[in-house]
Amino acid sequence: ATLITSAPAIAATPKIKWRLASSFPKTLDTVYGGGEDFCKRVSELSEGNFEIRSFAAGEIVPALQVMDAVKDGTIECCHTAPYYFFGKNEAFAFDCSVPFGMTARAQNAWMYYGGGQKLLADFYAQYNIVALAAGNSGCQMGGWYRKPIKTVADFKGLKMRVGGFAGRVLEKLGAVPQQIPAGDIYAALEKGTIDAAEWIGPHDDEKLGLYKVAPNYYFPAWWEPSTQFSVMINKKEWDKLPKNYQQILEVAAAETNVRMLAEYDFRNPTALAKLQKGGAKLSAFSNEIMEASFKATNEVLEETAAKNPDFKKIYEPWRQFRNLEFQWFNVTEQAYAKFAFSKKLGK
Amino acid sequence: ATLITSAPAIAATPKIKWRLASSFPKTLDTVYGGGEDFCKRVSELSEGNFEIRSFAAGEIVPALQVMDAVKDGTIECCHTAPYYFFGKNEAFAFDCSVPFGMTARAQNAWMYYGGGQKLLADFYAQYNIVALAAGNSGCQMGGWYRKPIKTVADFKGLKMRVGGFAGRVLEKLGAVPQQIPAGDIYAALEKGTIDAAEWIGPHDDEKLGLYKVAPNYYFPAWWEPSTQFSVMINKKEWDKLPKNYQQILEVAAAETNVRMLAEYDFRNPTALAKLQKGGAKLSAFSNEIMEASFKATNEVLEETAAKNPDFKKIYEPWRQFRNLEFQWFNVTEQAYAKFAFSKKLGK
Repeated sequence: ATLITSAPAIAATPKIKWRLASSFPKTLDTVYGGGEDFCKRVSELSEGNFEIRSFAAGEIVPALQVMDAVKDGTIECCHTAPYYFFGKNEAFAFDCSVPFGMTARAQNAWMYYGGGQKLLADFYAQYNIVALAAGNSGCQMGGWYRKPIKTVADFKGLKMRVGGFAGRVLEKLGAVPQQIPAGDIYAALEKGTIDAAEWIGPHDDEKLGLYKVAPNYYFPAWWEPSTQFSVMINKKEWDKLPKNYQQILEVAAAETNVRMLAEYDFRNPTALAKLQKGGAKLSAFSNEIMEASFKATNEVLEETAAKNPDFKKIYEPWRQFRNLEFQWFNVTEQAYAKFAFSKKLGK
Repeated sequence: ATLITSAPAIAATPKIKWRLASSFPKTLDTVYGGGEDFCKRVSELSEGNFEIRSFAAGEIVPALQVMDAVKDGTIECCHTAPYYFFGKNEAFAFDCSVPFGMTARAQNAWMYYGGGQKLLADFYAQYNIVALAAGNSGCQMGGWYRKPIKTVADFKGLKMRVGGFAGRVLEKLGAVPQQIPAGDIYAALEKGTIDAAEWIGPHDDEKLGLYKVAPNYYFPAWWEPSTQFSVMINKKEWDKLPKNYQQILEVAAAETNVRMLAEYDFRNPTALAKLQKGGAKLSAFSNEIMEASFKATNEVLEETAAKNPDFKKIYEPWRQFRNLEFQWFNVTEQAYAKFAFSKKLGK
């Protein structure tokens, strides 16, 4: 017998080293930082035995090739916005953001309890990937426009930097979607090569300085009512892990999920105030624009479901879930929000 | 040299057994379950070396004495709604819910990034407690009323089961707050001993069956725009833990925080539909009532700050933070919510 009550135990903590390729540059501190925090937590929880090294976009894998690199096992995992792979399969959007889709809270409800994770796991199996929700930006902003946008007609011929799903919907309104890397947006807007550009929200948008060349700042990004980021893991590597390392990944992802949204919600208010001081002109999209966008979105969703069985399989239960959530969120949350958020509260 | 790359390492994982006293009965499955999930995660992450056994309210400590039991070291930790200790010190409410206070997202932004955790840590030090945010109900419902409540005058003499901060504000409107345990509310409403009772939201309210005896169901609970639950830990026990066990507690609490809110957001919509089928009559508080409640709340907040220096120290930065958050949430999130939540989306 001994008095030592806290004798070290032999634990199944194999030494593992992984690499995580981020789709984001370090300048996107909140979202790139979310991936880094995730890696740090995994290391802490495993007492340094499970180390994941985080690499910024392009360091080891180009931003938009991280999913393929995970699928093929070139790297063990990545941190990305799954809708970047919309061109490969529109169903990736459900793990990220869909026009007129879930808010951040509805997305979490769907993922954790509403069957979302299971539907997505079935989808990701064909890519040899296990995906975990790991971060959210909340509802994004509707972008920067050189001229005011007042009616649907103002979208006719509008050259706008916008991609994926949003691009497909905006095309229906007459816009001409453009693909331009973040670093080139400012010059393109300044020269008038494009008329408008959407990026993220105040905190990230401020760094690009677009308010100087396209000061009309619209909201909401109905195409991104919340944007969820994910950690994608090669399934063979996942299956090789001891159970407790899988649990460490799950819990670290959940923490990243709640903390990244909180960080955006913390950073955006002061960034918006700065942008307005700098000359950004804040306006809501008109109701006519919202209604036309909603109609066009429904058409695109139905067309996509008709063509893509992977999309259809997730879309139908997703839509039901969204509709029920929205009815509920329109009750007590919305009654409070409507009253409290519009109060002139001073400082 | 050897080919074994995954040799077991010796880890600092002392065997520790703690007890967690919940303030909640097992029938509150979402919130009691949140505490249980927290304990389960801690066990998993420590490979069974750090075991916390969860006890329902009254099993080892009465519901409202769990904070004192943690403070005195009778038990190592508890899972509770900190505003239960409002009578000891009004400042506990900031770790839980304040009338016309933070929504769930604003609360997380404040706690994790806006200085909330630090302000609360300083406050909790006098109680020998370390507290971690661990769950949220979202915006609650405004309760069940035997008769419709249309104007502020309808609160005159209204005997209402409501406690803490809300009770103090409602008194200013003429109501008579009553303290009644959950299990006795139904009978009191049926007999007319009380005229109204507030509980939580649809999922939990449904179990009490109040719609049968007081069918007028109002929203929002402006006194609980979000209610955060916390794990409170005896500080001496916390300080004794190895660093990685403290990290395990932090990350498990963060996961509970995001998952419990998601579970409420998942369960409430279907529960509300059932309640309405059962005869619940859903109404929003009139604008007159909201305005009078807001005014009375501000008076109570100022009076409390004038009397209680602990409260004042947190209240001032808290109010600034809330005001800035609300301005931001009134932009893109609210524009989207207003449009999307009110759409007739069918099923």
